[in-house]
Amino acid sequence: MSNSARIAHVGIAVPDLESALGFYRNVLGLTPLPTEEADGAAIASLPFGDAQVELLAPRTPDGPIARFLARRGPGIHHICYRVDDLEAALDACRKHGYRLIDEAPRPGAGGHRIAFVHPKATSGILLELTE
Amino acid sequence: MSNSARIAHVGIAVPDLESALGFYRNVLGLTPLPTEEADGAAIASLPFGDAQVELLAPRTPDGPIARFLARRGPGIHHICYRVDDLEAALDACRKHGYRLIDEAPRPGAGGHRIAFVHPKATSGILLELTE
Repeated sequence: MSNSARIAHVGIAVPDLESALGFYRNVLGLTPLPTEEADGAAIASLPFGDAQVELLAPRTPDGPIARFLARRGPGIHHICYRVDDLEAALDACRKHGYRLIDEAPRPGAGGHRIAFVHPKATSGILLELTE
Repeated sequence: MSNSARIAHVGIAVPDLESALGFYRNVLGLTPLPTEEADGAAIASLPFGDAQVELLAPRTPDGPIARFLARRGPGIHHICYRVDDLEAALDACRKHGYRLIDEAPRPGAGGHRIAFVHPKATSGILLELTE
């Protein structure tokens, strides 16, 4: 348990990266980090202080972002919270019966350890935890 | 233009506030601020450092949160970015042809000045700006 949780990033599914980046460049004056690829998606990360917004655009028609866009349309795909102790958070999930997608931490973008919590545990929201 | 933009809050639409708060209390050790009401929704704000997560549950069947839940199911409803100069950001939106919901800043929760950008301007994402 910790009250030092932070928003690490918010992942937003968009059909087209360049088109979505316009608003961030033109209105907020932000420059994206170099585009990465993961899970069939191109990822443009935008720095907001210690947090980031990740714009996620599909690169393959059968990846999770392409499926999200087909099912729900563009929108916020997931939110990632940074905690002090990822194992302790996963233990707390298990103790309270919150279903996990990743039972143990695994390497995520940027080398951080991450784990996804199942949307069934969190009122339908896809949550990622990192430390 | 500014590179000091921050994530002010993320608004998440949930069917039931108490049920959604369980995860934040039990896993993240967070305590919500006193529940507020606005736009036909009950709002429980959770502090994540300088940012907040707002859990939004419908109080009336015809409010925007109830309609969002009916159309898309639970999920992240909007994201709010904090900028140094809200008028300058709205001017930049107009200059680049990004449609606004609020042409001028209006008072939002907590007395901050806010304005919503139309989802058509931002790849379908509902964006709120504040300062």
